Amino acid sequence: MKPTTTGLDLAADVVVLTSALCDIESVSGNEERIADAVEAALRPLSHLQVTRDGNAVIARTDLGRRERVVLAGHLDTVPLTDPPNLPARRAGDNLVGRGTCDMKGGVAIQLRLAARLPEPDRDVTYVFYDCEEIAKEHNGLARVARNHPELLEADFAVLLEPTGGIVEGGCNGTLRVEVTARGRAAHSARPWNGHNAVHEATTILGRLVAYEPETITVDGLDYREALGAVGIRGGTAGNVIPDECVVTVNYRFAPNKSGVQALTHVSELFEGYAVKVTDLAEGARPGLDLPAARAFVEALSVPVHAKEGWTDVALFSALSIPAVNFGPGDPNMAHHDQEHCPVEQLAGAEAALLRWLAADPE
Amino acid sequence: MKPTTTGLDLAADVVVLTSALCDIESVSGNEERIADAVEAALRPLSHLQVTRDGNAVIARTDLGRRERVVLAGHLDTVPLTDPPNLPARRAGDNLVGRGTCDMKGGVAIQLRLAARLPEPDRDVTYVFYDCEEIAKEHNGLARVARNHPELLEADFAVLLEPTGGIVEGGCNGTLRVEVTARGRAAHSARPWNGHNAVHEATTILGRLVAYEPETITVDGLDYREALGAVGIRGGTAGNVIPDECVVTVNYRFAPNKSGVQALTHVSELFEGYAVKVTDLAEGARPGLDLPAARAFVEALSVPVHAKEGWTDVALFSALSIPAVNFGPGDPNMAHHDQEHCPVEQLAGAEAALLRWLAADPE
Repeated sequence: MKPTTTGLDLAADVVVLTSALCDIESVSGNEERIADAVEAALRPLSHLQVTRDGNAVIARTDLGRRERVVLAGHLDTVPLTDPPNLPARRAGDNLVGRGTCDMKGGVAIQLRLAARLPEPDRDVTYVFYDCEEIAKEHNGLARVARNHPELLEADFAVLLEPTGGIVEGGCNGTLRVEVTARGRAAHSARPWNGHNAVHEATTILGRLVAYEPETITVDGLDYREALGAVGIRGGTAGNVIPDECVVTVNYRFAPNKSGVQALTHVSELFEGYAVKVTDLAEGARPGLDLPAARAFVEALSVPVHAKEGWTDVALFSALSIPAVNFGPGDPNMAHHDQEHCPVEQLAGAEAALLRWLAADPE
Repeated sequence: MKPTTTGLDLAADVVVLTSALCDIESVSGNEERIADAVEAALRPLSHLQVTRDGNAVIARTDLGRRERVVLAGHLDTVPLTDPPNLPARRAGDNLVGRGTCDMKGGVAIQLRLAARLPEPDRDVTYVFYDCEEIAKEHNGLARVARNHPELLEADFAVLLEPTGGIVEGGCNGTLRVEVTARGRAAHSARPWNGHNAVHEATTILGRLVAYEPETITVDGLDYREALGAVGIRGGTAGNVIPDECVVTVNYRFAPNKSGVQALTHVSELFEGYAVKVTDLAEGARPGLDLPAARAFVEALSVPVHAKEGWTDVALFSALSIPAVNFGPGDPNMAHHDQEHCPVEQLAGAEAALLRWLAADPE
């Protein structure tokens, strides 16, 4: 039996609406109920064209405005704690519980704007998608881009991920490689007959420790790079000199570099060792020099920083759409067991986006 | 149904007998048939008292001699290759196949001496045991020492492990420890919020690489020590700065040190890091200054070297019985897919032991 759709009241205060969205448990892969609720809440709004794709919902105004912008947010959360950190509850000035920070507050704001702005000064595409918190191949936004690329066409995109109320522009790319030191196996009672690959890997680790990551300014924002080991493995048995030691290295590179350039950089650093790519995601330039982005930053008049982590803005970047993160909640609280969001940031972010999209909301 | 016992002809040439023993497949844990065959071959010899313990067989002369010596060998082999490296076959001057080197040749010599020497000039205890090639807790010699310690009492012991026809005295001890570098986890996009345990482990590896192992003379033999990593592990996920990196280190220490002294040495080397013992086996002094051992070396008049690997001589050492390895076959061929033994070493080792135990064999 299909679970009952939960009615969402888009006229309710943003804190109440966020709380209601949190209470529809939607751990990645289990977004059907919340997608149903979002679709049901949006379908009656005659100023929106609503499309359902799996557990993603896309709602668009079609006013023939000169400019179109995307407001996007994911419906899923990381798993609950045990005992569950739901239902959401108010504690002082905070809303507490799974999803309050990452990112049901952003979704609530999207829904509120969709309801309150029948005639925004730009055409708006609201995108609610599934499976952001798990492996990239499941990502609902990427799926929508494949199935309905025309629905995502826009001049600018805002992802309502938690940024603590500031604008985070672009994002670093991320490259993961395995750097392998080779040796020759031998009995550990007679190591002089072999060559110890773990000892050899000391050189690899030494280069990592000595590496001084740069901070690179791209389109006016400072991107702090990072390079470090995220794993190491070697050895086959307690009495055998290892013939292989593999160091897994993660390079977070500024968006002035392509993935290929990042790989070249890492390959040069580890010259003499085999380097194998296991993961590569391009970064995204903030694109804040483009008119649509500039208008957004001016309307909000909040601080603008570079985004360090990789986010789905890179997906928009790949579609040639400049994109930023802007949403309520401290990003350090995302995925945290004590996840919470200051209620004032919910109202503040909603008000900021209203300033941008309409001088005079209903 | 119990497999048929294979008849062994102890009057046959040592090469023929070795071949027959090899052809009774006896990978560790599967020694019942070969133990049955050994027992059946020895029971008729009225000058021997025969005891069976699991798949070990102990046969003793009881002539009231002033001195008693042990000749010991294990009945098991490492697994066969695929296709199987059995039956054993003659190829030129070699006997080829699983067990020819490690150590059915030694077992054949034990059986031949047991049959040929009703009145050796020392009392002899012949020990044939199971499960030497697998984890220590299964070792048949250790089990006999627990179940029948009186049967192992002796002044000197010879293990007929392959030594290429020289005497290998005593053995290094072996200590395995886990040395742990600790850090603090963080998202790999923001490593400055954490402390990378894999990078920290560079110090541990650096000390290993810089370490200069000693060669230590004990009772006139040179023991070459060794210290090295046999494994390393660290990291939990591709985007997390590791909070722990564990280096597994194996220290082969000369038998002038106790296990406790070896651990103290390693703990000092890795000062500042947690050191946890995962395996410790004491070494064995060669004891070549003792009269029984000296007589053995003099009778054989073959070269005497220190044993680098750990062997069951350490078990005799723990029983306060000086022990050496002496047997046919190149030790580097043990466990080798192309395991083989020069037939001349089979006859040579038998003749050498005869020189020691009887001036005038039957």
